[in-house]
Amino acid sequence: MRAVLVVGTGLIGASVGLALKAGGFTGEIAGWDASAAELAEALRRGAIDRALESREAVLETDAEVVVLATPVLPILDWMERLAPRLKSNQLVTDVGSTKGEIAMQARRLFGQPERAAFLPGHPMAGKESGGAAQAEATLFENAVWLFTPSAGEPQSGDVWREAVRSFGARVREIDPQQHDEVCAWVSHLPQMLSTAISALLEDEFAADTEAMAAVQAIGGRALREITRLGCSPYSMWRDIALTNTEAIAATLWALEQRLAYVRENLRTPELRDEFARANRFRTAPRG
Amino acid sequence: MRAVLVVGTGLIGASVGLALKAGGFTGEIAGWDASAAELAEALRRGAIDRALESREAVLETDAEVVVLATPVLPILDWMERLAPRLKSNQLVTDVGSTKGEIAMQARRLFGQPERAAFLPGHPMAGKESGGAAQAEATLFENAVWLFTPSAGEPQSGDVWREAVRSFGARVREIDPQQHDEVCAWVSHLPQMLSTAISALLEDEFAADTEAMAAVQAIGGRALREITRLGCSPYSMWRDIALTNTEAIAATLWALEQRLAYVRENLRTPELRDEFARANRFRTAPRG
Repeated sequence: MRAVLVVGTGLIGASVGLALKAGGFTGEIAGWDASAAELAEALRRGAIDRALESREAVLETDAEVVVLATPVLPILDWMERLAPRLKSNQLVTDVGSTKGEIAMQARRLFGQPERAAFLPGHPMAGKESGGAAQAEATLFENAVWLFTPSAGEPQSGDVWREAVRSFGARVREIDPQQHDEVCAWVSHLPQMLSTAISALLEDEFAADTEAMAAVQAIGGRALREITRLGCSPYSMWRDIALTNTEAIAATLWALEQRLAYVRENLRTPELRDEFARANRFRTAPRG
Repeated sequence: MRAVLVVGTGLIGASVGLALKAGGFTGEIAGWDASAAELAEALRRGAIDRALESREAVLETDAEVVVLATPVLPILDWMERLAPRLKSNQLVTDVGSTKGEIAMQARRLFGQPERAAFLPGHPMAGKESGGAAQAEATLFENAVWLFTPSAGEPQSGDVWREAVRSFGARVREIDPQQHDEVCAWVSHLPQMLSTAISALLEDEFAADTEAMAAVQAIGGRALREITRLGCSPYSMWRDIALTNTEAIAATLWALEQRLAYVRENLRTPELRDEFARANRFRTAPRG
C-alpha cells in the first residue's frame, strides 16, 4: 500500500488519515470532499497530504486503496462512478453505516475481471458532532471495525484489514443483512430515540424559559446520556434511514409497544419482572 | 448540629455520612438500615460511627438532624412513626425521589407546635447500582440538591442546607408538584426507557447466543448509555412509579407517540425537521 485516497474528509475520513500516519504509514494520503472547508481543514490538520481539485481527479486516482468515507448515498454514487474507471490492482473500501445495499452493489459492480475489488466496512466509532475538526488519530482504538465481504473477495482486502488493526481497532466479519439488523438495534434505534426525546423536550419546554431552566438544571447524567445523540447531523442519518428503513421501523415499533407495556404496569408487579429482565440484560454473563 | 441519624445506609445514606465527615463534621453519625448487611457495611466504611440496634432506637433518637435515606414508601412510613416521637428542636429531612406525597405528609405531620420540623429534599445524584459499598464522599459534588419546603418552614432547615453545600452540592428550591413533573421528564422517563429497552433486548436476543454476542460486540457507547440504567434496582423504582404514576405515564405516552411519528417519517422530510428540533434542544443557548 503506497498511496491512499480518502473520499469524504469529515470526522471518519480525516480520522482514518490521522490514524494511518500515527500507525506508521509513510505513503501519500490524498483527499477529496464536496465541502471545500472540510477538505481544507483535513489538509490543515495533516489528515491528508494533498487535496484533489475535482471529482474528476477522484476517478483518475491510481491509489492502491480508495476509502469512501461519505454518508451512504454518496458512497453508492461513488461506487457507480469508480467501478468502470479503476483498475484490478486497486481496492475500494467504505465506512458506510448500513451495509445491505452497499454489499449488493459491490457484488454487481466490483470484483469482476479487469475491475477493482471492493471490501464493505463499518467502523463502530464516531462522535455526536462531525467534521474534520473533530478528527482524532485514536478514534478507532478499541472500536470494532466490521467487514461484510462477499464470497469471492480477493486477497487485497487483507492489506486494508492490516491497516485497520494498526489503528487499534478489532476486526470482525459479519453478514451484511445481519449487520443491518444488529445495527438497527444497537445504533440506529438509540439515535432515533435520542432524536425523538430531544425534539419532544424542545417542543415541551422551549416556550417556557423557567421550566426549561429547571429541566436543564435538574437533569443529570441520565438526561445527558439519553439526549447526547440529539445533536447528530441529519445529513448522515437521512441515508441510514433510507437504506435500513424496515429494520429501524421494526425496532421503533417494538420499543413503542414496550413503553406502552411499562406505562400500563407502573402500579403492578409486572414492573418488577420488567426490571428483572433488564437487570439480566445488563449483568448476565454471555458466551 | 451535634449529632445526625441516617435512616437507610445504602448508597445515598452512606454517602451522606462520608460527605459529612469529609466536610469537617465532627459530631456523631448514627445509622440504621433494615438490612443488617448494609448497616454493617456502612459502619465498616466509616460512613456512620454507630449502628442502632432496632427500629425502636430510631424513634428514641435525640439527633438534631434525622436524614431519611430509604425509598419513598419507607420514608412515608418513618414520617408517620417519627412525627409523634421527636421534639421541636429536631429536624427531619429526606432524600426521596418524588416529593408530592412527602411534602403533603410533611405539612400534615410536622412543623406544628411541639413537633419537629421537616425539610423535603432530593439530591440529583446516584449510581446505577446501589448499596453502601458504592458510597462516596464526593457523590454530591456539583450535583443539584433540590428542596421543596412548605410556606411555614422553620429556620432549622438552614443547618441542613449548609451541610449540603459543604458536600459541594448546589441547593435549589422548587415547588413539589413541579419537582415531580420535571423529574418525570429528566429522571423517571430515562429510567423507564432504559429498563424497557434493556428488557426488550433481553427478550429479543437472550435465546440466540450468537446474535447476543454480536449485539454486545458491536454495541458501542450509544448502546451502553441507553441501557446503563437497566441494572437499576426495582426496590427503589417501585416507590417512584407508585408515587408519581400520572406524570410518568404522561411522559411515556408522549414518547410513544413521538417514536411512532419518527417511524412513520423515516423516508420523509419530516425527519429532517425532527433532527433540527433535537439539535436545537442540545445546542440552543438558554436564558
